[in-house]
Amino acid sequence: MIELAENRYGKSRVRLMKVTRHPHGNELREWTVQVLLKGDFHSAHAEGDNSKILATDTMKNTVYSIARNSTATSMEAYAMELADFLLGRNPQVSSAAIRIESAMWKRMTVDGKPHPTTFMHGSGETETTHVERAQAGTFRILSGLDNLVILKTANSGFEGYIKESLTTLKETSDRIFGTAVRAEWHYTKTNIDFDAVRTSVRETMLGIFADHDSKSVQQTLYAMAKSALEAVPEIDEMELAMPNKHCLLVDLSRFGQDNPNEIFVPTDEPHGYIEARVRRTPDAE
Amino acid sequence: MIELAENRYGKSRVRLMKVTRHPHGNELREWTVQVLLKGDFHSAHAEGDNSKILATDTMKNTVYSIARNSTATSMEAYAMELADFLLGRNPQVSSAAIRIESAMWKRMTVDGKPHPTTFMHGSGETETTHVERAQAGTFRILSGLDNLVILKTANSGFEGYIKESLTTLKETSDRIFGTAVRAEWHYTKTNIDFDAVRTSVRETMLGIFADHDSKSVQQTLYAMAKSALEAVPEIDEMELAMPNKHCLLVDLSRFGQDNPNEIFVPTDEPHGYIEARVRRTPDAE
Amino acid sequence: MIELAENRYGKSRVRLMKVTRHPHGNELREWTVQVLLKGDFHSAHAEGDNSKILATDTMKNTVYSIARNSTATSMEAYAMELADFLLGRNPQVSSAAIRIESAMWKRMTVDGKPHPTTFMHGSGETETTHVERAQAGTFRILSGLDNLVILKTANSGFEGYIKESLTTLKETSDRIFGTAVRAEWHYTKTNIDFDAVRTSVRETMLGIFADHDSKSVQQTLYAMAKSALEAVPEIDEMELAMPNKHCLLVDLSRFGQDNPNEIFVPTDEPHGYIEARVRRTPDAE
Amino acid sequence: MIELAENRYGKSRVRLMKVTRHPHGNELREWTVQVLLKGDFHSAHAEGDNSKILATDTMKNTVYSIARNSTATSMEAYAMELADFLLGRNPQVSSAAIRIESAMWKRMTVDGKPHPTTFMHGSGETETTHVERAQAGTFRILSGLDNLVILKTANSGFEGYIKESLTTLKETSDRIFGTAVRAEWHYTKTNIDFDAVRTSVRETMLGIFADHDSKSVQQTLYAMAKSALEAVPEIDEMELAMPNKHCLLVDLSRFGQDNPNEIFVPTDEPHGYIEARVRRTPDAE
Repeated sequence: MIELAENRYGKSRVRLMKVTRHPHGNELREWTVQVLLKGDFHSAHAEGDNSKILATDTMKNTVYSIARNSTATSMEAYAMELADFLLGRNPQVSSAAIRIESAMWKRMTVDGKPHPTTFMHGSGETETTHVERAQAGTFRILSGLDNLVILKTANSGFEGYIKESLTTLKETSDRIFGTAVRAEWHYTKTNIDFDAVRTSVRETMLGIFADHDSKSVQQTLYAMAKSALEAVPEIDEMELAMPNKHCLLVDLSRFGQDNPNEIFVPTDEPHGYIEARVRRTPDAE
Repeated sequence: MIELAENRYGKSRVRLMKVTRHPHGNELREWTVQVLLKGDFHSAHAEGDNSKILATDTMKNTVYSIARNSTATSMEAYAMELADFLLGRNPQVSSAAIRIESAMWKRMTVDGKPHPTTFMHGSGETETTHVERAQAGTFRILSGLDNLVILKTANSGFEGYIKESLTTLKETSDRIFGTAVRAEWHYTKTNIDFDAVRTSVRETMLGIFADHDSKSVQQTLYAMAKSALEAVPEIDEMELAMPNKHCLLVDLSRFGQDNPNEIFVPTDEPHGYIEARVRRTPDAE
Repeated sequence: MIELAENRYGKSRVRLMKVTRHPHGNELREWTVQVLLKGDFHSAHAEGDNSKILATDTMKNTVYSIARNSTATSMEAYAMELADFLLGRNPQVSSAAIRIESAMWKRMTVDGKPHPTTFMHGSGETETTHVERAQAGTFRILSGLDNLVILKTANSGFEGYIKESLTTLKETSDRIFGTAVRAEWHYTKTNIDFDAVRTSVRETMLGIFADHDSKSVQQTLYAMAKSALEAVPEIDEMELAMPNKHCLLVDLSRFGQDNPNEIFVPTDEPHGYIEARVRRTPDAE
Repeated sequence: MIELAENRYGKSRVRLMKVTRHPHGNELREWTVQVLLKGDFHSAHAEGDNSKILATDTMKNTVYSIARNSTATSMEAYAMELADFLLGRNPQVSSAAIRIESAMWKRMTVDGKPHPTTFMHGSGETETTHVERAQAGTFRILSGLDNLVILKTANSGFEGYIKESLTTLKETSDRIFGTAVRAEWHYTKTNIDFDAVRTSVRETMLGIFADHDSKSVQQTLYAMAKSALEAVPEIDEMELAMPNKHCLLVDLSRFGQDNPNEIFVPTDEPHGYIEARVRRTPDAE
């Protein structure tokens, strides 16, 4: 017999721009929201019975309607409001998951002063959150960042690895280490200042990246996650992925030139891929 | 205390083109390979000790070296060879996962005849496989397809869903249903004709998509997965994701024109997102 | 003094899907349209006077409204209708340019038969047209194709080029030749069967690509354009661009293996870039 | 008769990262270079004679070799060196064009201080240059920027445009104005401080964008170009393209809510497209 083991549906890429107008100037937020619902939808799949289906178009409308009245100052708080609203109205839904990606807009500086109503897009880094709650359950909140592109030109090497018949890589005590960090951490509480905690986590990781004497991507990744968990008591677990975006030293000796770690070819593929999950152990609490 | 809960590393986007030369013409395959290893890498993370680390550059070399000698005729068989080789050489590795995406190349037809040595790129659909084995374990093989873009202009409606204060969508018994299918199915055996099974799974799903009288994406998705599982005994579970790429009917009444389901705006965002996991229950075997 | 030398404005990425419903089944076309107008818009730029400005939103509406009533069977004919309509209504516009890209949809085959109402997306190749007319002028029509990805595994070499102190490339009489063709040709008439001519041009070029004994991308590109111009009297000029998407032979000798032109790394960057404009000389007519 | 009207070839997407090591820290530049040559290449096209062909692989090597010895501090100066070298060695080349795109890397700040060897990727804006010279000719230098994404939440309206039967857009005195600027300007001299001039041009345009009371994209675009030409005597012409990336006000009245210009949907397609070329007239000099 064939059965429906799991199912989930919703609306993806609901784009929302919210301008908050203050006497002294405007605030700008741009979010891309995804709503995903699980629940009692067997009859929709097996029989084409839509009577329990909340249309994904209605979810989209809900995103905008809730945003209008929301006083949430963080993505995380807004996502909780949205999940509460959907769960409250839809008893057939067993759990609601909200994901939000926030684009980087920065206030423009004109003549050395912050301009009240004009903005410039920042880097391709995004801030993320993933908020989930079951009916009668409590919130699980994972926030993070994606595509944080950073690079160090010193204090990075890679030596002492396995040499075998298919090894052609040369050891180096001085290489470029470039990556695009994706991180997601778990909060132990749901009523904190999410933006302040986010800033602490991110700055701790960046400080370690900059100053670490890196023997490998693995070692630096672990040091970054460990330091963030040590510095920020409001989080207890982090997943961190750091591709190794190789910058290859160009062999200029063919042209009678030296290349003292100066001329590189940055490449996108292939790339190393390193990920780990690091946590504070329960014993430690 | 902080601890390393899980870790995994490897090489992504290793691109491989293999030309097999026969007297009557050539065959062409283009694969993008990912190798990911788990194992005893604590000292690398915590101490910067690389002595157990197989360099990701060596993994890349391994992909090419194994491909040269391989007589595998399917991605799945090649991926198993590659995993066996890596596990055999590296006792510190506890499990190896290989993912491959295959691009669509088709033999070119010239003057009505297949050309022996010239090819044209097909659609953006990719064939995928994901092969994983632990040391002393057996293979788990998931194959699938991604970005299969299909569309039906008849026999699709969406009615009878929940109407509430945020509902603005109008019911319709005749809409366009366009999607980009991602599917992944689990094989019950590892020594089958993977390409033949793949063809059966795909054609079964396409036939259902074309002929289904669709009440919702959910219902069609479920019918497609169910039929594939019924038709192909070599698979026992399938995950299927089908975004609803909305084509919006243009309101031409503002210009004194009718629009009998003829002029649409295809959109990419927002889109509905529907996914489900469907399986053959053990009882049924 | 500062002056406005040239200006142009319009609407880009107007997406249009048209379903034509016949008793025996449906036809599907998906076009992305761009409208660009030149004209007497100095006061808009210099003084913020919008009285001569046709809103780009109105252009978008025009695209859909004209498409509803149009009986054009080709992009080219539709684009001429659209330009005529815009020029007729807007005397302040001095010339109108319409660009259309058509996506590749193919009727789905189910159980060996073409399905009347279901379609599958074809390759990433697009059909293009660029139609332009000045008030009281005649149409200039350039049509073409873009992203036609083709590859030959035989009859391609590159030898005899300049050797100098910065040359490291090795000569080869047998390489892979892969490219993504972009072509644009000029029609000598405006009342022809555009689709039939397009098919002739494309098939002539593909036949040459397949059978040419290529000494360089330049030589094959020129042979393709020359043959198309010779075969199709309705066109008199062609621009052709063919990046050389290098497939690099992997050096397996480091692992004690040979590689008789079998294992390659396809790469996207850097790539060679070759373009030329080829024409029928007036003398020849 | 068929003839070769024009031809051009070279190497695209040559990626170069240059690390300059100072006692106090490192500098980082990442450029993507394109080299395109025109010249006497008829025999290559018509006869497959490669004897005058400089391999594009050799051009790539030249990019790296010249970069190693170059003391140029700007992209423009490096591009001139590269063109001079290629023209000097290759008398069969009639003109050389070099295009460079520079990625935005910023020094990382750690604990409030600039870090000597660590960098973070900035926005997706790129700095561009396009340098061209014929044998025995002088340089023509166009520099610019691309993908400068900016947005103003006040002082932008669009009113007084043509109302006709296909007009549905409502006039507004208060809309969001978001765009992704592409600009290219022409230098009157070749021995200037390109980076300083670039900064002046860019800051002048940004200041106008922020403070302009915009009646249309056209008016703001023209004011930006005009001001840059007035402020910077080293340039005499600018092309400026500014898509209008519409942010649509969400109609919340359907849900009994107002929306005082607060909740918007940012969209990518369709978008308005406005471009102009503005110049200092010769009389004025």
